[in-house]
Amino acid sequence: MKARTNFTMLCDFYQLTMSNGYFRADMADQICYFDMFYRNVPDKGGFAIAAGLAQVVDYIQNLCFDEEDIEYLRTKGCFDEAFLDYLRNFRFTGDIWAVPEGTPIFPGEPILTVRAPAIQAQFIETFILLTMNHQCLIATKSNRIVRAAEGRPVAEFGSRRAQGADGALLGARASYIAGCAATACTMADQRYGSPATGTMAHSWVQMFPDEYTAFRTYCELYPNNATLLVDTYNVLKSGVPNAIRAFKEVLLPKGITKCGIRLDSGDLTYLSQKARQMLDEAGLTECKIVASNALDEYIIRDLIRQGARIDTFGVGERLITSRSEPVFGGVYKLAAVEDKDGNIIPKIKISENAAKITTPHFKSVYRIFSKATGKAEADLICLHDEFIDESRPLELFDPDATWKRKTFTDFEARPLLVQVFRDGELVYDVPDLQTSRAHCQRQVDALWDEVKRFENPHNYYVDLSQKLWDIKHSLLNDPNGKKK
Amino acid sequence: MKARTNFTMLCDFYQLTMSNGYFRADMADQICYFDMFYRNVPDKGGFAIAAGLAQVVDYIQNLCFDEEDIEYLRTKGCFDEAFLDYLRNFRFTGDIWAVPEGTPIFPGEPILTVRAPAIQAQFIETFILLTMNHQCLIATKSNRIVRAAEGRPVAEFGSRRAQGADGALLGARASYIAGCAATACTMADQRYGSPATGTMAHSWVQMFPDEYTAFRTYCELYPNNATLLVDTYNVLKSGVPNAIRAFKEVLLPKGITKCGIRLDSGDLTYLSQKARQMLDEAGLTECKIVASNALDEYIIRDLIRQGARIDTFGVGERLITSRSEPVFGGVYKLAAVEDKDGNIIPKIKISENAAKITTPHFKSVYRIFSKATGKAEADLICLHDEFIDESRPLELFDPDATWKRKTFTDFEARPLLVQVFRDGELVYDVPDLQTSRAHCQRQVDALWDEVKRFENPHNYYVDLSQKLWDIKHSLLNDPNGKKK
Repeated sequence: MKARTNFTMLCDFYQLTMSNGYFRADMADQICYFDMFYRNVPDKGGFAIAAGLAQVVDYIQNLCFDEEDIEYLRTKGCFDEAFLDYLRNFRFTGDIWAVPEGTPIFPGEPILTVRAPAIQAQFIETFILLTMNHQCLIATKSNRIVRAAEGRPVAEFGSRRAQGADGALLGARASYIAGCAATACTMADQRYGSPATGTMAHSWVQMFPDEYTAFRTYCELYPNNATLLVDTYNVLKSGVPNAIRAFKEVLLPKGITKCGIRLDSGDLTYLSQKARQMLDEAGLTECKIVASNALDEYIIRDLIRQGARIDTFGVGERLITSRSEPVFGGVYKLAAVEDKDGNIIPKIKISENAAKITTPHFKSVYRIFSKATGKAEADLICLHDEFIDESRPLELFDPDATWKRKTFTDFEARPLLVQVFRDGELVYDVPDLQTSRAHCQRQVDALWDEVKRFENPHNYYVDLSQKLWDIKHSLLNDPNGKKK
Repeated sequence: MKARTNFTMLCDFYQLTMSNGYFRADMADQICYFDMFYRNVPDKGGFAIAAGLAQVVDYIQNLCFDEEDIEYLRTKGCFDEAFLDYLRNFRFTGDIWAVPEGTPIFPGEPILTVRAPAIQAQFIETFILLTMNHQCLIATKSNRIVRAAEGRPVAEFGSRRAQGADGALLGARASYIAGCAATACTMADQRYGSPATGTMAHSWVQMFPDEYTAFRTYCELYPNNATLLVDTYNVLKSGVPNAIRAFKEVLLPKGITKCGIRLDSGDLTYLSQKARQMLDEAGLTECKIVASNALDEYIIRDLIRQGARIDTFGVGERLITSRSEPVFGGVYKLAAVEDKDGNIIPKIKISENAAKITTPHFKSVYRIFSKATGKAEADLICLHDEFIDESRPLELFDPDATWKRKTFTDFEARPLLVQVFRDGELVYDVPDLQTSRAHCQRQVDALWDEVKRFENPHNYYVDLSQKLWDIKHSLLNDPNGKKK
């Protein structure tokens, strides 16, 4: 593993001005609770996929300022020397709870909660949002694309169009968690273990005197992994016939029948059908057809409906940037503080935009599964110490339209968040990528099909407990509580 | 400066299978020419801004495989031991020409050209595209936003919504080249020198018993940099009155009149007008109004047209992800090879999509400036060794509609690309960020207003010389030339 960059300084400058302020106002050790949550599912989908927690863990564990950082901050001329000295020994000493990677997540529920002294809890905001927003975005988009492919493998091909190196590397990582089978990115394989794949570009074909020689040479070099790119000149007149000739002359004599062609332009439905026919007529029934070129979940769905004969999809820029919605709008909001006796004082952020009002207090989230079907029925946000009695019927209500009520029986209430850090110590065993990928598939399988629709998905219930609802509405009327 | 990551392994896997193939086919030293160019201006604009070259330089200079990389590649089971051994001493020994950062660039013209042995030229494709595509994208979007603000400073606020750490850091860098005045990202300042700025989040206000105490404390701590966020509870009923009180009680007694408020939600036109009136009535005429909240070039233009009283814009997710078009589709295509005698053999990539046909050969690009106006009139792509005689009239023609002709006199033809590497040695003095930023402003100023429109911009001329046009059209009819 190559040296990791320390991302301590990847913070918004106001984290530092506020931290210095808390330090000077003697509020550094004020215990705070912050929640990360998101408000809208990208692409108007029914759910998102959590990803990025492993990088949050790395960040928290490596959090420290070195002398170069301190010196840089001194040049800004607005920080106390005592504060700069304090930063020398800065580390994270608080608690973090989070949703495991690969879990479906819904708007408005905490997906990560921090309990820590004010400076620490405030300081880590930017990097947590940055890395969770990015990977949740790409995991969510990738899962849509994988579902559209209906079991056909999807390979992530987008590095060259990613928004920076981490966009490529961690994007490939997130796409693998969400169900992609492979990536074109070598370093994502080396670093994170999402399998790298790839054979040739158009330039390979152009480098040889003719297309057949390029194909023949490739088959001789890689008889067990010969996927030939057939659209450099003309797919049906030249590319597929030359590929067939190379397969027959080089692979078949070796007894190799597994091979492939890749289409990267043109009418993919028509070309794949014609190519399939030509390959089958040549006896190359095991030759797979890979297709790429500005694909996304909608185009893949259409290709399949039209009867395209495509075995594997390579998806680039529209996956790696989540082009149709390139922002995952996760936010990180103060939910509570503790007074000097350890009592939790809930905090609310009011907004004229009702959707931007926060849910106060230190909270837990339970996912309610039907024991009969195994399906997820609703999520319940409650106070951190509320107990869900599975032996009794559970009545949930819509927090905005409280007369809409539904009662669940024969259910299991599973906590959604796990504790990741306790008193600054990592207490969570970060799963490997394959485990998170399998978890993602199981958890998505546990959602009703209605929630998984691309158009007009069912609005999954995310409800508040009565106690939490009461606290929220009392604070809405008096935001600063009894202290005002 | 903290340790830089070596991005050698950030390549598409097919770069490695092709490289191994060239090595085994005895083509490793075949000299090739590759061009990077792009096809469409994002957001249907009239031009893009070049950025990212400094990171390409870093990448090329740090290009090397370590033992861990070699060991990883060996596990893939498809590379020759002799090739893996060759990679141990791999470095870049070729030439690179590129457009300086901050320069306006147009579709179809080379913005970076590589001349190198086949393996090297092929191998560096992914990282060059990745870093240039990303920074050109963000620089182009940022320049649109800066132009919309008509001289008012624009600060980049997007780290938390960026697509990964490099998305934040290099996005901030690109936005500064393109004209942003500042960034919220501390590390982008520390690492690249785009000035970091910021004061407080809503959580600062919520951490105090009331809004006034939060404001007063901030003014006492930072009397010279007090920009107060006034929308935590209610902008006009609470935020602005409390800010005015804090300014009057803390700043004015110290003789400080420079201060600011920030609006982060609501109707920014209405709120800024009312806030301006309240501030002016309180005598705080030097108090600046900063506005943020999902801004972009269109909203900023509308706010100004509506008479919003905003002095500075903070722009986040729509800038740092170029949300309206998050992909800059730069490509990297083989343009020529050299035969054993050093003769250049042009290469073309044909496509059924006419826009995807490449322009072959080793080329130069000249930007034609009118001496009378100083304005850029057209770009001319020609063979690398063509001479533009400025003493004679220059007739250019549309390469698609060759009857459309225009003659230029009294012009200056300036080469667009500079040599960056010669025989693997860096021969270019990479300018500092401020220099590139000033260059960008001068070069954008040299474009006609018609090219700078957001809607239906004038189509700037990018023409081919007659010699180049002839070669391209002869190859279109016979792609593999005389060798076929």
